Amino acid sequence: MQEYSFSLEIEVRDYELDCEGIVNNANYLHYLEHTRHAFCKMAGYSFAQMEADGLTPVLSRIEVDYKSPLRSGDVMESKLWVEMNGVRCVFHQDIFNKSSGALAVKAVVSVVCLENGKLSRGEKVAKAFSPYLKR
Amino acid sequence: MQEYSFSLEIEVRDYELDCEGIVNNANYLHYLEHTRHAFCKMAGYSFAQMEADGLTPVLSRIEVDYKSPLRSGDVMESKLWVEMNGVRCVFHQDIFNKSSGALAVKAVVSVVCLENGKLSRGEKVAKAFSPYLKR
Amino acid sequence: MQEYSFSLEIEVRDYELDCEGIVNNANYLHYLEHTRHAFCKMAGYSFAQMEADGLTPVLSRIEVDYKSPLRSGDVMESKLWVEMNGVRCVFHQDIFNKSSGALAVKAVVSVVCLENGKLSRGEKVAKAFSPYLKR
Amino acid sequence: MQEYSFSLEIEVRDYELDCEGIVNNANYLHYLEHTRHAFCKMAGYSFAQMEADGLTPVLSRIEVDYKSPLRSGDVMESKLWVEMNGVRCVFHQDIFNKSSGALAVKAVVSVVCLENGKLSRGEKVAKAFSPYLKR
Repeated sequence: MQEYSFSLEIEVRDYELDCEGIVNNANYLHYLEHTRHAFCKMAGYSFAQMEADGLTPVLSRIEVDYKSPLRSGDVMESKLWVEMNGVRCVFHQDIFNKSSGALAVKAVVSVVCLENGKLSRGEKVAKAFSPYLKR
Repeated sequence: MQEYSFSLEIEVRDYELDCEGIVNNANYLHYLEHTRHAFCKMAGYSFAQMEADGLTPVLSRIEVDYKSPLRSGDVMESKLWVEMNGVRCVFHQDIFNKSSGALAVKAVVSVVCLENGKLSRGEKVAKAFSPYLKR
Repeated sequence: MQEYSFSLEIEVRDYELDCEGIVNNANYLHYLEHTRHAFCKMAGYSFAQMEADGLTPVLSRIEVDYKSPLRSGDVMESKLWVEMNGVRCVFHQDIFNKSSGALAVKAVVSVVCLENGKLSRGEKVAKAFSPYLKR
Repeated sequence: MQEYSFSLEIEVRDYELDCEGIVNNANYLHYLEHTRHAFCKMAGYSFAQMEADGLTPVLSRIEVDYKSPLRSGDVMESKLWVEMNGVRCVFHQDIFNKSSGALAVKAVVSVVCLENGKLSRGEKVAKAFSPYLKR
């Protein structure tokens, strides 16, 4: 089983709930994005720095399995590990309900980088993430 | 090639853009959800009616391929067709840039229904959608 | 009584509801912003054009009275009129439930423009809006 | 000068930025709401408990002065104090940029409670908040 490289605690905010009292499906993409950005910052290569280097990370594909809903007051542990797959940076992201340990969401997110509008081979990103890349 | 059962025109709103000037990835899930709800209403079985019947539709899986970004002022055509796969209701949803015709997003969304907290076999939904189901 | 210069029909989307089944308070700011942007476009001076002219419109103050909640399926009529007050562009914005005619939200929104980072006297905006300005 | 009763640290998330790279105006209402809910929880009378007691808190008015924008990476200190004004519960909420100390947003938010659909005199809320009420 793969170990995670990063974990972030996030608290559900009540405005993220929908009329059924559970977190709306789109908000999980916000949690996942926020976790990736925090990981990049921790790894020493923030999105702001990428932009300054002329790199624009672009989401190319996302797969999300919704396992159990999060509700008001829940705290989640949002975890990820990352691998390079050709030019794609693939984030494996799982969100757990901190209190129950239940898996809330399981996601695979593929990101590519544009460099001056063209697809980058991703060396800069791969280099920055190398201590965290799984083989 | 599959024909679509439903199409909805949606205009990008500027608050849906992120700091790169393109629609933020999570907002496409909003567009997709809004399109499904509008389809259900058109098909004569709205989410409000489902709730009144004791059915709770729950998202179980979503796959989204991001093909080309939408920007300020863009109008999209959000199209779908639907099939039943066992107890799962599978929505095939494509969003096109109305002006250029370019595919913006390609998504497959699986929904199940809970009935009194248990997985429903989905007969009511299948019946309501039957004129639109692909075989 | 003041006449409105602009009206936009907007349909409530279900993801805008909160767990009480009414539109979350923050989403009205989205509706109000979307209406202002649509008005500016109609008046021939879009936000995109302002940016191209080196103008950055910045919200300085907002007052919102919440009168009656909007719910799933509601369609609103979002209306506004505008006046200049010194350098401030003041939008008077009312949102009505189209079906009942009830006032949902009453807002006064003050916007200033930055020009190269400094407060602009707003001539360009005032000129563009002059056919619509109330005296 | 009034002392605050509560302070909450919140980090800006990148999806909250708009295309100018600053936090979109509507997101401050999210921060303000999240802060009020956290305060109520800390004060021992959470929104969930209010609902269980048949009380529905409803926003009646909000005034927000936007003083200086928050950006990517900023951490805010969201502070409030509260007073009762007849049946209205009035939250005075200020958000500061933690790093610079600059005031980002100054807001006054009025909330009333409905009890079985009618305007409540607010005794339960006033009692719960009494250790924090300013006189």
